[in-house]
Amino acid sequence: MTDSPLPPEPAAAGADDAVFALHRGGKMEIASTVPLAGPDDLSMAYTPGVARVCEAIAADPARAADLTWVSNTVAVVTDGTAVLGLGDIGPAAAMPVMEGKAVLFKQFGGVDAVPLCLATTDTDEIVDTVVRLAPSFGGVNLEDISAPRCFEIEERLKALLDIPVFHDDQHGTAVVVLAALENALRITGRRHADTRVVISGAGAAGVAVAKILLAAGVTDLAVTDRRGVLHSARGDLTPVKQALAEQTADRTGRTGDLAAVMAGADVYIGVSGGTVPEEVVASMAEDAIVFGLANPNPEVHPDVAHRHARVVATGRSDFPNQINNVLAFPGIFRGAFDVRASSITEGMKLAAAEALAALVGEELSEDHIIPSPFDARVAPAVASAVAEAARRDGVARR
Amino acid sequence: MTDSPLPPEPAAAGADDAVFALHRGGKMEIASTVPLAGPDDLSMAYTPGVARVCEAIAADPARAADLTWVSNTVAVVTDGTAVLGLGDIGPAAAMPVMEGKAVLFKQFGGVDAVPLCLATTDTDEIVDTVVRLAPSFGGVNLEDISAPRCFEIEERLKALLDIPVFHDDQHGTAVVVLAALENALRITGRRHADTRVVISGAGAAGVAVAKILLAAGVTDLAVTDRRGVLHSARGDLTPVKQALAEQTADRTGRTGDLAAVMAGADVYIGVSGGTVPEEVVASMAEDAIVFGLANPNPEVHPDVAHRHARVVATGRSDFPNQINNVLAFPGIFRGAFDVRASSITEGMKLAAAEALAALVGEELSEDHIIPSPFDARVAPAVASAVAEAARRDGVARR
Repeated sequence: MTDSPLPPEPAAAGADDAVFALHRGGKMEIASTVPLAGPDDLSMAYTPGVARVCEAIAADPARAADLTWVSNTVAVVTDGTAVLGLGDIGPAAAMPVMEGKAVLFKQFGGVDAVPLCLATTDTDEIVDTVVRLAPSFGGVNLEDISAPRCFEIEERLKALLDIPVFHDDQHGTAVVVLAALENALRITGRRHADTRVVISGAGAAGVAVAKILLAAGVTDLAVTDRRGVLHSARGDLTPVKQALAEQTADRTGRTGDLAAVMAGADVYIGVSGGTVPEEVVASMAEDAIVFGLANPNPEVHPDVAHRHARVVATGRSDFPNQINNVLAFPGIFRGAFDVRASSITEGMKLAAAEALAALVGEELSEDHIIPSPFDARVAPAVASAVAEAARRDGVARR
Repeated sequence: MTDSPLPPEPAAAGADDAVFALHRGGKMEIASTVPLAGPDDLSMAYTPGVARVCEAIAADPARAADLTWVSNTVAVVTDGTAVLGLGDIGPAAAMPVMEGKAVLFKQFGGVDAVPLCLATTDTDEIVDTVVRLAPSFGGVNLEDISAPRCFEIEERLKALLDIPVFHDDQHGTAVVVLAALENALRITGRRHADTRVVISGAGAAGVAVAKILLAAGVTDLAVTDRRGVLHSARGDLTPVKQALAEQTADRTGRTGDLAAVMAGADVYIGVSGGTVPEEVVASMAEDAIVFGLANPNPEVHPDVAHRHARVVATGRSDFPNQINNVLAFPGIFRGAFDVRASSITEGMKLAAAEALAALVGEELSEDHIIPSPFDARVAPAVASAVAEAARRDGVARR
């Protein structure tokens, strides 16, 4: 099956020292944006001058958006339970990823991001903590929190806060997958309603990808977990999986294991970390589309997938069609912050995906269904589309 | 009494627009310290490279100190209940001060500081929240939390956490006051044990100043609140004030109101925001020392104080001898972080005060008892003394 070994990752080939050296002391810092060269500066930025600024906000809390860094600042919050493919490694060990996220937010979106790794995995405590922190932030990016707690935490925070709350492992992934899929469908001449999709994995990413595909018009969708297709007859489903079953396989009558549901399927989207045997890939429809997004080892090696599929994408930077969340989250928060959105709506996510897909334009090909993360047009295009959608959806506050 | 009006503050004289313009968009931002110019950089700073760094910390949590920004980062935490002289203006309105604090931390101490304004004033909730945030920070600077909750919050956090916890309104003020007082005593030829001190104000600053003066060897000390001298016969004292009474006026038998205890006193330290009539200042001992630290309006106008006192200090930048916490907190955290101290001990605070006082050296005069905040020697000298004291006190971890 996966008989051609993957080439080493750029950072893995004896580059340990370079990676560790890069991380030494952390990857970010606080910088002042005001002069502090002498007593006059101090009187302006700090006491006594600052007192009048405080009083102005106390009199009209909405002025905090203009007079502090809050409205451009997102809390990147994790409990360290589902970090990358590493799993539950705890809050201290999660920090290098959260810092990485923060520097990407700034680099690509001009968003100030503060990494907060919490010493609790209790749903109520995480919700309470974030609510108490909310006056300090213009938005909340939940990160690497394991399912199913991540769903409840996000839903409760969205209900309690009037600032954007976004679980990137769900919605960032979903936005980029939808964008890539739109273009893959174009290439292979498919329409949403006539396309059979299988999603392998019913965690944070799988659930969110399923939801956004349904919202985009996909009708024949089956989601699998380790025990096979989610359908209501199984009786072993969590509430989240049960709801998903009712919206997916229950409607089409699909059941069985991954191999059964893959036979004749048009699209495979792997967000499971599992593997798919080559003969199962071979059983898919003509001009199949295979997104093996587990990182660093895709569910199907690209070389294997290409023997049977027309369009192949992975999460890796060393193969074509990299499905990378950095294409989405900086622009989504940039756009939401630009209009001081009170939340991130489904419309804003769909608009982000459309903007991403549209950027490929005339360059669309089997090996170019999604822009590069280093395409400078990406974040501005996503931000603009998201801001416009926020206005359309009535959540923009300026 | 205070018949000569104070000159306008630098930032108050029609400079509102400049102050507000300076604060627009906030005073700080996040900056990346690593390159992010292309896919290879992304593979190093983010996935997949970062995974090995996470694994290294998961295997040995102590490595987080080297491999993340945590050990150089302090949470500046407030609930907005005692902001400057403005009082309980809430967390949103406190942010401009916390941002100011953060930029001072960086400017003077090279410390990364994150302002966190909490939407709760409940002692338990504040403690719980900070404990949950602790994996993200190398230290906690409590700020502008009203007494007496600030005492309990600090004590509980010190007991629960193995990183420095420092309530600047208490200890920063105390360190700088002690430094200034040491030099004022030198000028006036006094010794601690023969000096009669009155502290007006038994809030966060008054309590902490009293404690550090006792630790430094002052023996005749009376602390007053609105009802007069704290002594055990009063029967209306909070536990914190009761403990202070037993260590101060109970020992010397001093009672009565502020005017009564000021007669013949050598030193007045005002941290109350009240006012002191000129005849009360006139009743002090020869060569009196008057620190009127309320801001922007000192308890005694410097011009009035100078008629009766030999050494006068205020919190203002437009008079000599500015008692400013920025002389202490950046260097204290710098020193604590340099040796990865597990706490900030009494010895570290005393060492900070000694280092500050010593910097004045040969330039000591009535109008120069404390260095300028813009004296570049300040933070390094404080940091060095604090680090050495941390080693001496056994709290240094490297």
